[in-house]
Amino acid sequence: MRVLIKGGTLVDDAGEYRQDLLIENGKIARTAPDIKAEKNDTLIDARGLLVMPGGVDAHTHFNIDVGIARSCDDFYSGTRAAACGGTTTIIDHMGFGPAGCNLHHQLSAYHGYARGQAVIDYSFHGVVQHIDDAIIDELASMVHEEGISSFKFYLTYQYYLNDGDSLRLLRRLKEVGALATVHPENNAVVNFNRRRFIEEGKLTPVWHARSRPLACEAEAIGRAVNLAHLADDAPLYIVHLSNGLGLDYLRLARARRQPVWVETCPQYLLLDINRYLEPDGLKYILSPPLRPHAELDKLWQGIADGSIDTVATDHCTFRASLRRELAADNFTRCPNGLPGVENRMALLFSEGVSTGRISPSRFVALTSSNPAKLFGLWPQKGSLLKGSDADLVLFDAGRKKTIYHADLHDNVDYSPYEGFTCHGWPVMTLSRGEIVCQHERFTGHAGHGRFLHRQPFTCSQGEGLR
Amino acid sequence: MRVLIKGGTLVDDAGEYRQDLLIENGKIARTAPDIKAEKNDTLIDARGLLVMPGGVDAHTHFNIDVGIARSCDDFYSGTRAAACGGTTTIIDHMGFGPAGCNLHHQLSAYHGYARGQAVIDYSFHGVVQHIDDAIIDELASMVHEEGISSFKFYLTYQYYLNDGDSLRLLRRLKEVGALATVHPENNAVVNFNRRRFIEEGKLTPVWHARSRPLACEAEAIGRAVNLAHLADDAPLYIVHLSNGLGLDYLRLARARRQPVWVETCPQYLLLDINRYLEPDGLKYILSPPLRPHAELDKLWQGIADGSIDTVATDHCTFRASLRRELAADNFTRCPNGLPGVENRMALLFSEGVSTGRISPSRFVALTSSNPAKLFGLWPQKGSLLKGSDADLVLFDAGRKKTIYHADLHDNVDYSPYEGFTCHGWPVMTLSRGEIVCQHERFTGHAGHGRFLHRQPFTCSQGEGLR
Amino acid sequence: MRVLIKGGTLVDDAGEYRQDLLIENGKIARTAPDIKAEKNDTLIDARGLLVMPGGVDAHTHFNIDVGIARSCDDFYSGTRAAACGGTTTIIDHMGFGPAGCNLHHQLSAYHGYARGQAVIDYSFHGVVQHIDDAIIDELASMVHEEGISSFKFYLTYQYYLNDGDSLRLLRRLKEVGALATVHPENNAVVNFNRRRFIEEGKLTPVWHARSRPLACEAEAIGRAVNLAHLADDAPLYIVHLSNGLGLDYLRLARARRQPVWVETCPQYLLLDINRYLEPDGLKYILSPPLRPHAELDKLWQGIADGSIDTVATDHCTFRASLRRELAADNFTRCPNGLPGVENRMALLFSEGVSTGRISPSRFVALTSSNPAKLFGLWPQKGSLLKGSDADLVLFDAGRKKTIYHADLHDNVDYSPYEGFTCHGWPVMTLSRGEIVCQHERFTGHAGHGRFLHRQPFTCSQGEGLR
Amino acid sequence: MRVLIKGGTLVDDAGEYRQDLLIENGKIARTAPDIKAEKNDTLIDARGLLVMPGGVDAHTHFNIDVGIARSCDDFYSGTRAAACGGTTTIIDHMGFGPAGCNLHHQLSAYHGYARGQAVIDYSFHGVVQHIDDAIIDELASMVHEEGISSFKFYLTYQYYLNDGDSLRLLRRLKEVGALATVHPENNAVVNFNRRRFIEEGKLTPVWHARSRPLACEAEAIGRAVNLAHLADDAPLYIVHLSNGLGLDYLRLARARRQPVWVETCPQYLLLDINRYLEPDGLKYILSPPLRPHAELDKLWQGIADGSIDTVATDHCTFRASLRRELAADNFTRCPNGLPGVENRMALLFSEGVSTGRISPSRFVALTSSNPAKLFGLWPQKGSLLKGSDADLVLFDAGRKKTIYHADLHDNVDYSPYEGFTCHGWPVMTLSRGEIVCQHERFTGHAGHGRFLHRQPFTCSQGEGLR
Repeated sequence: MRVLIKGGTLVDDAGEYRQDLLIENGKIARTAPDIKAEKNDTLIDARGLLVMPGGVDAHTHFNIDVGIARSCDDFYSGTRAAACGGTTTIIDHMGFGPAGCNLHHQLSAYHGYARGQAVIDYSFHGVVQHIDDAIIDELASMVHEEGISSFKFYLTYQYYLNDGDSLRLLRRLKEVGALATVHPENNAVVNFNRRRFIEEGKLTPVWHARSRPLACEAEAIGRAVNLAHLADDAPLYIVHLSNGLGLDYLRLARARRQPVWVETCPQYLLLDINRYLEPDGLKYILSPPLRPHAELDKLWQGIADGSIDTVATDHCTFRASLRRELAADNFTRCPNGLPGVENRMALLFSEGVSTGRISPSRFVALTSSNPAKLFGLWPQKGSLLKGSDADLVLFDAGRKKTIYHADLHDNVDYSPYEGFTCHGWPVMTLSRGEIVCQHERFTGHAGHGRFLHRQPFTCSQGEGLR
Repeated sequence: MRVLIKGGTLVDDAGEYRQDLLIENGKIARTAPDIKAEKNDTLIDARGLLVMPGGVDAHTHFNIDVGIARSCDDFYSGTRAAACGGTTTIIDHMGFGPAGCNLHHQLSAYHGYARGQAVIDYSFHGVVQHIDDAIIDELASMVHEEGISSFKFYLTYQYYLNDGDSLRLLRRLKEVGALATVHPENNAVVNFNRRRFIEEGKLTPVWHARSRPLACEAEAIGRAVNLAHLADDAPLYIVHLSNGLGLDYLRLARARRQPVWVETCPQYLLLDINRYLEPDGLKYILSPPLRPHAELDKLWQGIADGSIDTVATDHCTFRASLRRELAADNFTRCPNGLPGVENRMALLFSEGVSTGRISPSRFVALTSSNPAKLFGLWPQKGSLLKGSDADLVLFDAGRKKTIYHADLHDNVDYSPYEGFTCHGWPVMTLSRGEIVCQHERFTGHAGHGRFLHRQPFTCSQGEGLR
Repeated sequence: MRVLIKGGTLVDDAGEYRQDLLIENGKIARTAPDIKAEKNDTLIDARGLLVMPGGVDAHTHFNIDVGIARSCDDFYSGTRAAACGGTTTIIDHMGFGPAGCNLHHQLSAYHGYARGQAVIDYSFHGVVQHIDDAIIDELASMVHEEGISSFKFYLTYQYYLNDGDSLRLLRRLKEVGALATVHPENNAVVNFNRRRFIEEGKLTPVWHARSRPLACEAEAIGRAVNLAHLADDAPLYIVHLSNGLGLDYLRLARARRQPVWVETCPQYLLLDINRYLEPDGLKYILSPPLRPHAELDKLWQGIADGSIDTVATDHCTFRASLRRELAADNFTRCPNGLPGVENRMALLFSEGVSTGRISPSRFVALTSSNPAKLFGLWPQKGSLLKGSDADLVLFDAGRKKTIYHADLHDNVDYSPYEGFTCHGWPVMTLSRGEIVCQHERFTGHAGHGRFLHRQPFTCSQGEGLR
Repeated sequence: MRVLIKGGTLVDDAGEYRQDLLIENGKIARTAPDIKAEKNDTLIDARGLLVMPGGVDAHTHFNIDVGIARSCDDFYSGTRAAACGGTTTIIDHMGFGPAGCNLHHQLSAYHGYARGQAVIDYSFHGVVQHIDDAIIDELASMVHEEGISSFKFYLTYQYYLNDGDSLRLLRRLKEVGALATVHPENNAVVNFNRRRFIEEGKLTPVWHARSRPLACEAEAIGRAVNLAHLADDAPLYIVHLSNGLGLDYLRLARARRQPVWVETCPQYLLLDINRYLEPDGLKYILSPPLRPHAELDKLWQGIADGSIDTVATDHCTFRASLRRELAADNFTRCPNGLPGVENRMALLFSEGVSTGRISPSRFVALTSSNPAKLFGLWPQKGSLLKGSDADLVLFDAGRKKTIYHADLHDNVDYSPYEGFTCHGWPVMTLSRGEIVCQHERFTGHAGHGRFLHRQPFTCSQGEGLR
């Protein structure tokens, strides 16, 4: 079974090439300037299009239970939306399990959620919600037997780790070959502010943002980075960066050659704190919150100068109707999270590539090959090399398209990007050689997606990211 | 003759105050929380409005002869447009005179252009187009007798100064109490590129931008800054900054406490290089040219963090029809310059204040009090202190208004900001207590504007800018 | 009673002046180019000398009880040594009191220690060792009645404050007009490392330094700075900075205009981690510890570029003999602290001024006027203005002198600077017009020193430090 | 013929290894933990020693004619001194030839100087003293036939290139595969200052330094870096960096991924401007001159943080007696240049490695493997890989030794480092397996050194320097 993509411009994280691309058995068989079609080949005419590795969204929360609600996208609707936006792999951050549960407990629950549902390939990040000898012991088998080579810990929320436990975890993760990821917000600050605001009756959505100001995040980034350094330079990945001061702390860490990487999300690049002043401000509640516009400028600089490594979504959906119902007059009752998995690629292409901030190659690096390399999936994913999975997205750089939620494939009832016009749009997605979306029409099927057993982490994976 | 402005929020570069403001004989007589109106007072209801010092646009080119054309706004239409946008003072950069002419020659020509024409107050920057003993000798009288306490020199174009002459000029300007301003682009680079592109037939508008890349400007900024330092730390003001690398060079100079200041313009904050790809790309030709979008982000950071001191326009208008006629297929024949004097205040307010990047006070500093302080006009201009000229602009922060050239008051035939929607708009302008514009209707008259004899420069003027 | 200092060069933090200086009744009565002597004037010939405000050492620990020992310099020997080195004011950081004690308890103990003993003027910094409503309430009277307008809290040691308590304290200190000072080291990291090293038998002095690596300090600096920002920008003063990364964090805070200041000490500028490898390495044990040489270079840059505000000593003396006795084979049993109060001025002058890194004026700022301004003592101290206390030091910039402990005036049995040759040396010290030291000979007396009731802190005090 | 080095610690730019090293026929045959000696092996006992690649000094001027004098070290005495200090390769910067001469002219002269004289291997950098079509045409054959793959141009002195010629040269060097090196000082500034100082009679040695202040160098660095960027990112190597501002400009260039590298020299790391105030200040005249001490701190930071790539010497010797004779009362008549080739390795080891600023591996990178990689000699030189030339230096990290000129092997009559005590000292040097120096006793012979035909430059050579 062969598929031949002719006439396009191949783009990977190293460059652009006027070449055809041949797929055999779901894998890339060859790329060359002019590949002859054979009888029975499925031919795809890519003239005028960019042919790129499908997206890798390293931060989703499908079907997550956050106590007051369960997110409304499961592994079927979530991956369907992803596929329709050009993303061919997601790595889901597991939610917290019951207090004291071990690591395998959550993994087994999540295998249950995803199996038979996902329409594209997927993996999971582990989550560490407490530290004891048993957890420390369990990590090695998670990495080497289960293929889970990254783990998140939190510095806020119910199950945050203190400094001593963080140190212990970081040292162990390095030993077993796993990448630590961290949600950095200072728990004491959040609690201090929420308590005050509740007392003072400051409960409209904008107070959500004011209860977690950017220094609350930046402080936790500084702390996590230094603890990682003190834990024998344990490799560290910061999720959902939303501000420039935190980025400056990371730049200082890199300047002393510390192995740290950082992710941001389209919402932090495109939406600002003024959204909370809109009548439906609850729609934008997530943590860390949206920031003043000056921070957006700083993040774009990080995107342009290479200090930011990946763009993921933190897709975590609760309907606007539910938000209003739960939290009409009190932001503290609103579940946190934003939709985004479907428009990540188009938004970053439009605001990054079409404006001239970044090259198409850097776009591939940010959305696909960098996360694949960091999370042990490369070159199976995020690559156009011979032998890689034929996970591809075809972009029409010239196409203008306005985002309306009515056209999207998720299960939520709004898009934070409603009415936003994109310059450049993904027109076809292939997962292991199979066309799963064409011109916004979903053509895949539940169960096509397979669990990805990921390689252990070594620092060289993260060196020389583009 | 008294005018009383009641109910507004006064804003100067130091803060915001809920106060009324009383004008007597064209000067600010008093500001206080609740000033009682007297009989015959002209009352202005400023409830819901910000009452700010009128704008000072320190960079216009009215009626300038650039050899292949004369700009189409003279001191009447140019100042009329300024007034309608909330600007109450302009400082025009004189053009070059005939080769070898002395400094007074141009000054006398410009007095002739402006006298009886200007509708708001004005002054001029001198221009130094060659260096010899006579020019060096003439500088003192320009400053102390003529009230011209700033002079521009160029590092490109026909009359650029070489390093030795620049050093000599800078030392002398410091001695006589004048501020040097510089147009920084590397002449050899521009010539080298233009020659190449002409040979290769690369003559569409985008090649204008490519012939003067950002490093061509940044190099010249670095050079000017170091020459000024080597000239006993002569004070230096960089005009129309368009890129982030140049800004980083200036930050380094400030870090060693060198007296340098820098101006940018709305076009560099809002328009990018992609404009040259539009069918009518000639409309955007100016020098330095528009830049890739990443530079815009960097300039906004400078606006936000205080490294940029002023926002002017470099208003210099040539009709689109003329541009097409002269330069249909060859950017090198297109006169350089953009309109902008009327929308400077609204654009910066909208994109700066309404987005949360800067405070209203910093807006006043950037558009009015900082240029007034640097160019020897403060506190006569740029101030709400008792005794200052009653040059005021009233802003409605809540008003949305879309820019269409049909509504503007200049003499050109297009706006580069056509269709741009502003959040916040100037609704009234007063010049020395006289209402010169109300809701976009011009109510002033030619000849109202007076020449401003400026004070000599001392470094303390430029210290502690907001 | 008049004293006339003739022929010298006056130096304050603003400049150098060839003037004479007249003292009447212990205060500066006049400075002028050529003051005529009157009969009975005490004449001091200052030809060839620099006449500067006497030093203000804002960080000493006299007579402190650290549990395992009491420091061997009390307020008599400690201030005597200070006076002999050109320091005329000390501000002592009180030690911890019994668990749960209130703030006045320690103050009253310290008044007891100092009264009748001190040979120069003195004050105290408060210490906050726990947070509850009573402590929060007590702060205002400490500032406004007792004249104690600065308080230290710790992020390590027995009585460290957690993030929530730190926030609460910082907000309150700002409200009552006090400056927070902080000892920044991450407690969890120190404990984690000490436990490990004890288990592994790593107990020689160098493991002291390795148990508190620079990231352990930098993390705590980042945290303190962000907590202060989150506490409504409470003013913050970092004590004894020893590394460049922490300094970079502070630079970032200043870039966003946060009110933060920082002190370093001669030991961090001159001694490096290799000292712990010497046979008598215990002599150098203090916290934070001495650092690799690259950090020294970074601190000198901060001294030169203005990012460091003050140089104090953290003078806290335990004899080498006692150290060996207590901690022969185990660094964890060694009391922490270094001598230094007597050589601070000479060392900084020699390595700062004589090498050309800083000007004499900046030397005065760092050693005298900046701490006086920050801690509510200016212009009584740290100034040459008319009416200021005649606290002066006369420096001979040309004198070479080698430091030997045998020549010093403290009570300890070694100097960490033994054998170090200074270029430039203080040859006379006056406290309120009285000569207290001349050519290393102490001429003062116990009880001359008075308690200084300090002014409340306002941010303007700390603006525009030189 | 085998030589076996046993018991030492091998150090290359990647790490340290407890291994033996076997030499056969002048090349490294094997490195392994325990190599058995065979009969007739020459055995070298390296217990307690570091075994490192011999030094590559990429900046000497032997036998150079500077118009008013010829330097007193020729290729024999110069390379003998190098060898005795642990340097096994030098790359000499050719001097200017007669006006208008072509590139091969100087090459042939220098082949004549070195042939039969050099005691270690050597190559030359070309020098471009004017630009015309013939020179541009000649470059390719110099690189590909003559093995000269780097060329210097000057921004000051008689034969400096202007901006247009620099651009043309830089583009061509990139095309032919050569690395541009540049001497960056602003010619107009130097001339302006010298003229002034001569008129004012300011002619003592310190005015040499004041005539070429650091901004004069930094400006030229900024210019060269931007011109190289504008010349299609032509690779650029800055020689003899002496100040921190220039280094900051280079950091900004690297941050935008421009291929630039930079060299400094021991004199800029260890000696400061105060030297010119010594009675024999003429001994320190070189260009750029020695700087204030604060610059030394900044250069050490660059050494430590990786922003400086190489340490060379600019060895260029004129006797103190000659200096006094020519320039007794007028610094402008003094030939420029300092000795240093013999003590480079010991000085950097002592002040860099022994103080803890850098690791032994980074020392190897700076002194040997980085210049070898940049100048097309790696892995023949600067490497411990199998097959590399057995050019080695054995360092005794524990040996203390004071530098006295009487012990050195050059032809000059003083050392600027007289009396400086080194911690760590080179005790043996091998050139292609032959011992050329042992405990400061020279055992090599003239003519042993061979000309090194260097590889063309590609940017990947300069990527990932350690």
